[in-house]
Amino acid sequence: MIFVMKKDAKREQIESFAKKFEEIGFQPFISPGTERVSVCLIGNTASVDMDDIVETCDFIEYGRRVTEPYKKANRAFHPQDTIVNVGGHKIGNGTFTVIAGPCSVENTEQIMTVAKSVSASGAPMLRGGAFKPRSSPYSFLGMGKDGLELLKAAKKETGLPIVTELMEIADLPFFEDVDIIQVGARNMQNFKLLMELGKLRKPVLLKRGLANTLEELLLAAEYILAGGNNDVILCERGIRTFETATRNTLDLSAIPVLRQKTHLPIIIDPSHGTGKRDLVQVMVRAAIAAGADGAIIETHNDPANALCDGAQSLDLNQFDELMRDIRRRGEFEGKVMA
Amino acid sequence: MIFVMKKDAKREQIESFAKKFEEIGFQPFISPGTERVSVCLIGNTASVDMDDIVETCDFIEYGRRVTEPYKKANRAFHPQDTIVNVGGHKIGNGTFTVIAGPCSVENTEQIMTVAKSVSASGAPMLRGGAFKPRSSPYSFLGMGKDGLELLKAAKKETGLPIVTELMEIADLPFFEDVDIIQVGARNMQNFKLLMELGKLRKPVLLKRGLANTLEELLLAAEYILAGGNNDVILCERGIRTFETATRNTLDLSAIPVLRQKTHLPIIIDPSHGTGKRDLVQVMVRAAIAAGADGAIIETHNDPANALCDGAQSLDLNQFDELMRDIRRRGEFEGKVMA
Amino acid sequence: MIFVMKKDAKREQIESFAKKFEEIGFQPFISPGTERVSVCLIGNTASVDMDDIVETCDFIEYGRRVTEPYKKANRAFHPQDTIVNVGGHKIGNGTFTVIAGPCSVENTEQIMTVAKSVSASGAPMLRGGAFKPRSSPYSFLGMGKDGLELLKAAKKETGLPIVTELMEIADLPFFEDVDIIQVGARNMQNFKLLMELGKLRKPVLLKRGLANTLEELLLAAEYILAGGNNDVILCERGIRTFETATRNTLDLSAIPVLRQKTHLPIIIDPSHGTGKRDLVQVMVRAAIAAGADGAIIETHNDPANALCDGAQSLDLNQFDELMRDIRRRGEFEGKVMA
Amino acid sequence: MIFVMKKDAKREQIESFAKKFEEIGFQPFISPGTERVSVCLIGNTASVDMDDIVETCDFIEYGRRVTEPYKKANRAFHPQDTIVNVGGHKIGNGTFTVIAGPCSVENTEQIMTVAKSVSASGAPMLRGGAFKPRSSPYSFLGMGKDGLELLKAAKKETGLPIVTELMEIADLPFFEDVDIIQVGARNMQNFKLLMELGKLRKPVLLKRGLANTLEELLLAAEYILAGGNNDVILCERGIRTFETATRNTLDLSAIPVLRQKTHLPIIIDPSHGTGKRDLVQVMVRAAIAAGADGAIIETHNDPANALCDGAQSLDLNQFDELMRDIRRRGEFEGKVMA
Repeated sequence: MIFVMKKDAKREQIESFAKKFEEIGFQPFISPGTERVSVCLIGNTASVDMDDIVETCDFIEYGRRVTEPYKKANRAFHPQDTIVNVGGHKIGNGTFTVIAGPCSVENTEQIMTVAKSVSASGAPMLRGGAFKPRSSPYSFLGMGKDGLELLKAAKKETGLPIVTELMEIADLPFFEDVDIIQVGARNMQNFKLLMELGKLRKPVLLKRGLANTLEELLLAAEYILAGGNNDVILCERGIRTFETATRNTLDLSAIPVLRQKTHLPIIIDPSHGTGKRDLVQVMVRAAIAAGADGAIIETHNDPANALCDGAQSLDLNQFDELMRDIRRRGEFEGKVMA
Repeated sequence: MIFVMKKDAKREQIESFAKKFEEIGFQPFISPGTERVSVCLIGNTASVDMDDIVETCDFIEYGRRVTEPYKKANRAFHPQDTIVNVGGHKIGNGTFTVIAGPCSVENTEQIMTVAKSVSASGAPMLRGGAFKPRSSPYSFLGMGKDGLELLKAAKKETGLPIVTELMEIADLPFFEDVDIIQVGARNMQNFKLLMELGKLRKPVLLKRGLANTLEELLLAAEYILAGGNNDVILCERGIRTFETATRNTLDLSAIPVLRQKTHLPIIIDPSHGTGKRDLVQVMVRAAIAAGADGAIIETHNDPANALCDGAQSLDLNQFDELMRDIRRRGEFEGKVMA
Repeated sequence: MIFVMKKDAKREQIESFAKKFEEIGFQPFISPGTERVSVCLIGNTASVDMDDIVETCDFIEYGRRVTEPYKKANRAFHPQDTIVNVGGHKIGNGTFTVIAGPCSVENTEQIMTVAKSVSASGAPMLRGGAFKPRSSPYSFLGMGKDGLELLKAAKKETGLPIVTELMEIADLPFFEDVDIIQVGARNMQNFKLLMELGKLRKPVLLKRGLANTLEELLLAAEYILAGGNNDVILCERGIRTFETATRNTLDLSAIPVLRQKTHLPIIIDPSHGTGKRDLVQVMVRAAIAAGADGAIIETHNDPANALCDGAQSLDLNQFDELMRDIRRRGEFEGKVMA
Repeated sequence: MIFVMKKDAKREQIESFAKKFEEIGFQPFISPGTERVSVCLIGNTASVDMDDIVETCDFIEYGRRVTEPYKKANRAFHPQDTIVNVGGHKIGNGTFTVIAGPCSVENTEQIMTVAKSVSASGAPMLRGGAFKPRSSPYSFLGMGKDGLELLKAAKKETGLPIVTELMEIADLPFFEDVDIIQVGARNMQNFKLLMELGKLRKPVLLKRGLANTLEELLLAAEYILAGGNNDVILCERGIRTFETATRNTLDLSAIPVLRQKTHLPIIIDPSHGTGKRDLVQVMVRAAIAAGADGAIIETHNDPANALCDGAQSLDLNQFDELMRDIRRRGEFEGKVMA
C-alpha cells in the first residue's frame, strides 16, 4: 500500500505517519519522489482502512493498493528511475553502458589484451568469468579465484570497473574488489544467494532465467531489494523456446514491459541472447532503439580458440566497430554513453 | 545445386547448359545476379557430379551444393534482395513500408475514417480484415465479402493498395482487387492454400506460425515460390512462449537470421507480437534498427469499441505520432519510406 | 446458460420452454441426460434473468451460467460421455480403440499387407495418409486421390473402417467412403475447414495443434459441433517444447483435463507424440492407464524404407505384440476393446 | 571410452589394465556388470587408440566410444539399474516407492498427523519442506531448521525415512539425519550445490528444472556422480510450456527416454507436475504404467488451509485411496511396493 503525500506535507508529519505504522508491526519506507514523497507499506495490509486514513490525514494526497507481488521493485513504489553508480559511471536513466570482455578469464595475456582493447574502444566496464556455470562437469569451469585475481589486475591496469559472476555464497569474500556481482540465469531463483546479496551494498546484475517470466525476474530482484540493497540491474539474456536458429530467443519486448513495471535499469545480453557472433550487432541496435540502458557483450582476442562460447564472441576489431555504431546510435537516441 | 557462371559467360552458353539439365529431368532456373548469373537445380542432385562439371565447363566459376531444404527462398539461389512491387510501392531492399488499418473492417464509416487518416499520416498501404480467423466460433468472424467490398471502396477513395487475409481457396475470386494477400499465422502450414497462392502472380504476406521455426517459415514460402509466384513477404508476428506479460513473444532476431538465409523482404507485426498498444511504438523502433523492411500496424478510430483486438490497436492520433517517429528513424537508417 | 429440468418435467413443458427462447432469438438445444434433461442457450445471455426464470417455472431444478467459451463441447452442456459410432464400433465411454496403419499409403501391396496384418492383430480400424501435409514442398506429399482409392480397397478387403486426413474442402467429395475424417495438427485452426466439417454427419478426428492450448482445442471442436456434427474425437499428439530428445512432448495430462471439461472421446497419437518407435509402447501403456479412449498408431510393413515417418513406425510384429499388451491392459482397466 | 572385458577375464588382468590408464593421467573406473566387467575412461580419450588396445589385449571383448557428454550416468558405462538403498527400502529396479507428505512442515501436529496417516496408508517414506524456495520473498519460506527438527521427530515416531530439500551448502550440517536430500527444480543447475552433494554418501533426489532438457538433467546428475556419490534419483516434475490448464506439463515420455539413457532410478512428482489435486491420481497411474520407479506426492491433513500448494495436495483419505490403487497397479506391473 502506498500513501502519496501532498506537495506541502512536512517532513515531521511524514515521519511520524510512517512511525505509527512501524509501531503496529509494518515495515514502512519513505520513498522520495521528484514532486511528492510516498510512504510505502509492505506486508499484509488487509486490515488497514486506507480510505479512512486518507480522509483523516489532510497531508495525504491519495492512497493506493499495490496488487503486484513485487513491491520495492515496483515503479508504483518508486516512480523515478533508479540510477546505479559504479565507480563514477552511472547505469540507468538516460545512459547507455557497454560492459565488454571475454566469457571466461583464461590467462594474463588474454584478459589484459582484451581489457586494454575494449577500454580503447570506449567500453566503460569489463566483464570476465572466473567461476563458470557449465552444463557438464567435464567442461572448463573457469579459473576460479585465480581468474578473479587476473580480472582485478586488469581493473588496476585499465581503471575499468569489473563485472563477474558469483555462484556460491562462500565465495563472497573474494568479490570485495568486484564492482558489479553478476547472478547468472541458472541462479536467478537461487533464493539464498539473492538474500545474501540483499545484505551487501554493491550493485548486482541479475540475469533473467531461461524460462522465467518477467514477473518472476522482478520477484527475484525483490529478494535483493528487500534486504536493503537497492542497486539491482536487470538483464534480459534470451529465453528458451522451440526455435533452434538461435541459442535463445532474445525477448526485446522485455525492455518496454519492465520499463513500465519497475524503476530498475535494464540491460541486454545479445551474446547469450543469440549465441551467434554475427547477430550481436543487429540486436544491440534494436535494444538501443527499444530503450535499453546498456548491453553486456562477449569479446575475445581470439574467438576461434576461446575456451568457452567462442561462437558468440566478437573479436576486438568487430567490437571496436560495434562501439562506433553504438555511439552514433546512442547520440541519436539522446543517450549519454556511460 | 548451384553453378555460378563466370562474369564473361555468354547467354547462349548458360541457356544451353540449363537446357541439358532439363533434358535429363531437372527443373533448372537461371538466377540473374548483380555480377554473375547462376544456374540452379532443384531436386535430387545426388547423381550429379558437380566437380566434374565445373572442371569440364570453362564458363563456370564454381559449383555449390545447397543443404538447406528451401531452395528458391534461399539467398544462395538468389543473392540479391527481392523487391516486391505493389502498385508502384516497393517493399524490400532499402525501403520501410508501413501497412496500417483496423483488425477488422466493421462498417463504411470506420474503414473510410481510418483509411483517410492513416493515408494523411503517411502510411502507403491499408490493412483490414474481412475474413477473420478467431479461436471461438461465437466471436465476430469478420464481415466477409461485404467487408472486402468496403475495403475496396476505401482503396478507390484513398488510392492506398490493400492487404487482407485469405482463409480459403474458394474465396480467391473475391481477392482480384486485393493488392497483397495475407496468409495468417494459423494458416502458415495450410499447404494447399500455399500451393494455390503459388499459382498467382500477386504478392503474398506470409505470417510466421505461433510455434513455427524460421526454417519452417522459409519452407512455407518455398511452397509459394515453387509454384512460380516470387513475391512473398515474410512477417514475424510473435511466437508462443511461457511468458504472459505479452500476448506473444516478438522474435526480433528473426530479422537478421532471415536476412542471412533468404532474399525475401521481412516485416514485423508489433500489434499481434505484443498484444498491447503501449508496446507497439517501442517494438517498431527496435524493428527499424534491426533492419526490418516494414511493419503492419493495427490502427482504429475507436479502439475501445473495436470488434476485435482493440487492446493492441493504436488510435489515429497515436498512429500519426508513430509515423513521425518512424520517418525520423527511417531517415537515420537511410531507409526510403515506401 | 443451462436450465436443468426436474426429473418429472414433462416433454411438452420442456419443448415449449425451449421454443420461447427460440422466439426471442436464441438457439436453444435440448440435451437429454441420464437422469435429467437440460435446455441449453448459446449466445449472449446477459439479458436473461436466470434466477427469475428458475423461480417462475416449477419444472426447472436449477440454472447455471457457463463461463467457458466452448458450449456444445462442454461437459456442463452434455454430462454423459459422447460415444462415436463408426461402422458398428463404438469410440468413447469404456472402450479402447486402436487405429493402426502406415503414415502414408504407398502402393497396393503395402497397404494391403499392413491392413490384413493389423486386422489379424486385432486392430478395429485402419489409418493411412493419402494427402500428406509436409513441411517441405519437395517431400513426398502423399498419393492423393489414388492413395484414397487404395485405402478404400483395403477397407473392402478387410472390412476395417478407414481414417484419413482431409487437407482441403475441395477434396471432400472423395471422402464419402472414408469413415473418420482426420484434421491434422497444422489444420486445427483452419476454421473454414472445421466449419465445413460441421455440416457433415461423419465422425471427425481432430488433432491438437503443435502449440495450442486445450481450451483452443475445445474451441476448434466447437466449430464442428456448432454446425451440427456431434461426432468429434479429440486427439492429443504432442506439443512443441524446448525438449529435443522426443519429436514432440506428449501431454498425457490432457486426458484427465479434457475428461473433466468435455464429453468428447479422447485418443492419443504416441507415434507423432514421441517420434520414436521404441517409445510408442510405453506411452500407449501410460495412456490406457490415464483413461484414454484409444490410440492411433503408425505401423508399416517395412519401416526402414517407409516414405514418411519410418522412425516412429512399428513393424507388423511389433504392432502384434503391442496389441497383446494393449488387450491385457484394457482388460485390467475394464475397457472394452472396440 | 569403455572396454568390456571377456567373461573369463581375470581380476588381476582387469586391475592392472585400469592401473595403466591411471598412470598416464586418466581416471578409470571398473564397472561390475551382471555378465561382464567394464573398464571406463572419462576425459579426453582422443589420443587413445582403442582398436589397437582391443586387438592387443586378448581379455577384452570390445571397446566403445561414448559420445554422450554424461558418462557415469550413462547406461553404457553401467548397464544394470542402480538401486538406491534408503534405510532398508530399495528404490529402483522393480520397486515402486511412494514418498508422501506436506509441501511444508507447518507445526508438530500437522507433520505428526500426516506422517502417521501416510505410514498407515502404506507409504514407506515421508517428505516435508523445511527450507522452501518461493518466487516471492514475502511468501511463507518454510520453518527452516525448526521444520527440520519436526521432520526428524516424525521420523523417530513413525520410522519413516525422510526426504527434504536443501537450498544452500551452509545448511548441510543440519541434514545429517535426513535420508534423501532433495535438489529442487530451481537448483538443478546450481552446480556448486551439486558438487558438494557429490562429496556426500547420501542419496540425492534431483528434480528436473522447469526448462531443462533430459540431457541437462543427466549432466546435473553427472556433477554428483563425478564426485563419487552414486545414489542419485531423478525426478520428472513437469516442464514449463505455453499450456495454462495445468501448472506444468508433466513429461511422462521422460521415463522411457531416461530408462534408455541411464541406470539411475526415475520417479515422478504429479503434484507439481499438474498443480491440481484431481489430476494426481490419473498421472500416478500413467507413471506406473510407463515404468516409473516411484512418485513423490503432496499430502496434507487440511489442504484448504495449507500454507503452501494446497491446491495440489491430497487430503489423507484421498491419499489412502490412492495407495490402494497404486498397490493394485503395482501388482499388475509386477512391481514390489518398496
